[in-house]
Amino acid sequence: MYRMMAAMLISLGIALATGPWLIRKLRQLHFGQTIYELGPAHQQKQGTPVMGGLMMAAGILICSLALHPEKWDGAWDTVIPLLAVSFLSMAVGFADDYIKAIKKRHDGLSPWQKIMGQVVMALGFSVYCYFSPMIGSSILIPFVGTEWDLGIFYIPVMTLLSIFIVNSSNLQDGLDGLLGTVTAVSSGGWLMICVILSLLPSLPGGVQPDTYAVTGVFAASLVGACVGFLRFNRYPAKIFMGDTGSMLLGGATLAMAMVTRLPLLLFFTFFTPVMSSVSVILQRYYFKLTHGKRIFLMSPIHHHFEKKGYSETQIVSMYMSITLILSLFAALGVCMIR
Amino acid sequence: MYRMMAAMLISLGIALATGPWLIRKLRQLHFGQTIYELGPAHQQKQGTPVMGGLMMAAGILICSLALHPEKWDGAWDTVIPLLAVSFLSMAVGFADDYIKAIKKRHDGLSPWQKIMGQVVMALGFSVYCYFSPMIGSSILIPFVGTEWDLGIFYIPVMTLLSIFIVNSSNLQDGLDGLLGTVTAVSSGGWLMICVILSLLPSLPGGVQPDTYAVTGVFAASLVGACVGFLRFNRYPAKIFMGDTGSMLLGGATLAMAMVTRLPLLLFFTFFTPVMSSVSVILQRYYFKLTHGKRIFLMSPIHHHFEKKGYSETQIVSMYMSITLILSLFAALGVCMIR
Repeated sequence: MYRMMAAMLISLGIALATGPWLIRKLRQLHFGQTIYELGPAHQQKQGTPVMGGLMMAAGILICSLALHPEKWDGAWDTVIPLLAVSFLSMAVGFADDYIKAIKKRHDGLSPWQKIMGQVVMALGFSVYCYFSPMIGSSILIPFVGTEWDLGIFYIPVMTLLSIFIVNSSNLQDGLDGLLGTVTAVSSGGWLMICVILSLLPSLPGGVQPDTYAVTGVFAASLVGACVGFLRFNRYPAKIFMGDTGSMLLGGATLAMAMVTRLPLLLFFTFFTPVMSSVSVILQRYYFKLTHGKRIFLMSPIHHHFEKKGYSETQIVSMYMSITLILSLFAALGVCMIR
Repeated sequence: MYRMMAAMLISLGIALATGPWLIRKLRQLHFGQTIYELGPAHQQKQGTPVMGGLMMAAGILICSLALHPEKWDGAWDTVIPLLAVSFLSMAVGFADDYIKAIKKRHDGLSPWQKIMGQVVMALGFSVYCYFSPMIGSSILIPFVGTEWDLGIFYIPVMTLLSIFIVNSSNLQDGLDGLLGTVTAVSSGGWLMICVILSLLPSLPGGVQPDTYAVTGVFAASLVGACVGFLRFNRYPAKIFMGDTGSMLLGGATLAMAMVTRLPLLLFFTFFTPVMSSVSVILQRYYFKLTHGKRIFLMSPIHHHFEKKGYSETQIVSMYMSITLILSLFAALGVCMIR
């Protein structure tokens, strides 16, 4: 528990301390955002430095490596996948941001390059989990309290889910403070889930104290990092997290869900990013099917709300509320696994 | 657990459903806010309906009464004090709001009347807890994991603490969405604390499943009520909770802490309201001591931040972040009680 508290404070401190330096540095390098010509009127945000995700990455990395439990052997099996997924996802986002920043264009990596990077990450991770003795092919069903063995289907299903979640996170990141706030709250939820898992006397497949301890520290460092980042990112934002940050947060959340064998809870704690993705997909298919009609004024759905007249801060507060309630639901659902 | 989920949704639904009606009704009655002449430039808020706390009260009351555990006997001992403290505190705030609204003046109850009402509530509650076989004079010390028997001093200490907490809540309520957001998150923390308490195998003084179940339902209904209320109260606010609401939330939070024997955790989950009070006290004494100097540009401290150039939404986001981190700390501290 002390490790989790320390992780929260240390990664908060790192984000707060490195933030001003990073903003200055990125400005010097002219790594500013190029705003879509199509979006709602956000032209004044042109040039805001991007890649703020880096100030979160440092804290998460340091805490996960430094605050492992005494018995390092068992912990290693959990630390590696958590960090690998987070930082591989981030690498794809970083490449995208970097190319955009250098070329001063809206498009970074080609969609094909981006998806290939994600497929490699997602497939590798799913295969790893499938063969890991700590994780395996069966997932826990919260609320009901049983296990569901997906067998070999675990790999394709989890690969698709992984790609979906990381992209959802990426799509959600479109308003000042939005994804940072949502991930701060949802990571708090994951921290509580880890604590509850470690207190449950029995679980299908066995209780794995090391996994929960390590994942708890990781979740706590995410909370700290997001809160620290928000200091600079809340409306009006001085820096954006960029694809670097949004894919890091998406990958990190995905990783926590997979190693605790609770991928279904992503639809609770990460509901608003999922909603962003679904709104984009619905919009696109409806547009094709009806040859030009739209469901939403604009997708992802947070831009729809903007066009409806909600302010950025109202939308952030609304998404925070939804995430808070659903994260608490998720934690309560975990209690029912006995 | 199902009851806690139901409580969250029902009180959310009640707040959302009654909100528009309540706003219309209060407008008809001309129960609008009279803004301090002294404060930061909030003159445009003149006339915003007050007593929005009522839309939270209904949900909390209904959920607590309807969603009790099967064995009503044990639960009753916890439901009664939770509701009594919340609604007695609210009554003082309501009287204040009502007189202000009728007289169209800034001052409602005299300070003397207000404090007397609070003393009656606080003293009565402390005496009740002292003699209750479920609670008693010893409090739990989180993080360390021991018990501390205050003996007869329990009564004066808890009376003072109760008055302090309810007034802190009242002082915090000064910006759109501020206290609602803070209490939504901190009540989420109390919900998690109740869940964790119920999972701990042993506690000094014994484990009391009924108390935790009932308090968990109560906490969940608070989360729902606050989130529902925020729909109308977030910046720009269509309604204020008034003293009715702020004292209700203060009383409710106090009550949860007392019945779970964790009053010390109020300084974590309710840190920002406590900070508001402390800033007012510091300001006043420093002013007297130095014959006219000030520590803060204005107290409570959220107005200091406003004068420093932070926007209302930035301050709300900052207070939310602090409350999130400290509520998670509180929950982790409870895990350490073994």
